[in-house]
Amino acid sequence: MEKIVLKPIGYVSQGMPVDKTVKWNRWTDPSTIIINEEYRPGLEGLEEYSHVFIIYFMHVSHPAELKIRPRSRADMPEVGVFASRAPSRPNPIGLTVCKLLEVGEGFLKVVGLDAYTGTPVLDIKPYDYYDVIKQPKVPSWFEKIWVERNNNLSTENP
Amino acid sequence: MEKIVLKPIGYVSQGMPVDKTVKWNRWTDPSTIIINEEYRPGLEGLEEYSHVFIIYFMHVSHPAELKIRPRSRADMPEVGVFASRAPSRPNPIGLTVCKLLEVGEGFLKVVGLDAYTGTPVLDIKPYDYYDVIKQPKVPSWFEKIWVERNNNLSTENP
Repeated sequence: MEKIVLKPIGYVSQGMPVDKTVKWNRWTDPSTIIINEEYRPGLEGLEEYSHVFIIYFMHVSHPAELKIRPRSRADMPEVGVFASRAPSRPNPIGLTVCKLLEVGEGFLKVVGLDAYTGTPVLDIKPYDYYDVIKQPKVPSWFEKIWVERNNNLSTENP
Repeated sequence: MEKIVLKPIGYVSQGMPVDKTVKWNRWTDPSTIIINEEYRPGLEGLEEYSHVFIIYFMHVSHPAELKIRPRSRADMPEVGVFASRAPSRPNPIGLTVCKLLEVGEGFLKVVGLDAYTGTPVLDIKPYDYYDVIKQPKVPSWFEKIWVERNNNLSTENP
């Protein structure tokens, strides 16, 4: 199979600003996703979940790189792109667990999404018990980012 | 954006048998994923994680349906496809959290994957602390499936 063709089911109508000078906080500012009319019946029952995976196409993305430094930080080790969540992937598919705030007529509101306004959405999947890994093991460089994130939670832009 | 074109980065060389008469247990039988040679440098450092997301293209799939009954069970309510993990989605993208057993020269071994042998793999992402939701809310029909699964864990085929 050489090529796989997908189509957006909707898009992020209000999300992370492409303009980096605009103030935005991933952990408090909600994002809105509009679902194309033909797919809206597929949302029924989604409101019974607290969290969802948003799977999207990172249309504002860098060319694929196989080795990256996390967050492009010089103090981070060079690792393979599949050992990171960096956007410069062979297939620029984004995956984010979000808190579900609202499911309305053809739209949803979530918080925690790090996708730019205008991002095409490919799929929405509910987060369920199979997805809970209580104590995953991560590299020490990730631990460092995590500690910094928790120290700066109120002001972070992703 | 009308069409999104992706390409496999590898494939499941040994996974869930397409032939349903072959005995296979998702929770104990490992799956092997072979990564195409050009993308292998991207695996470096992946072995430092305990769990990974495998994102794949469900090539053995049903036509998209917007309303489904979970596990095609008559005793389950009809829900929107985005409120379930059913494979009959507008974009047949599969997403599974797997335990990482081994990262070798151009391949990985995981357990927990519910993808057929031959499935094209689109992306591998490490599971990290952002993905841990300790107590997600799920519908009562899911709770029922979960209780049954835990009662039958030793014999389940997904």
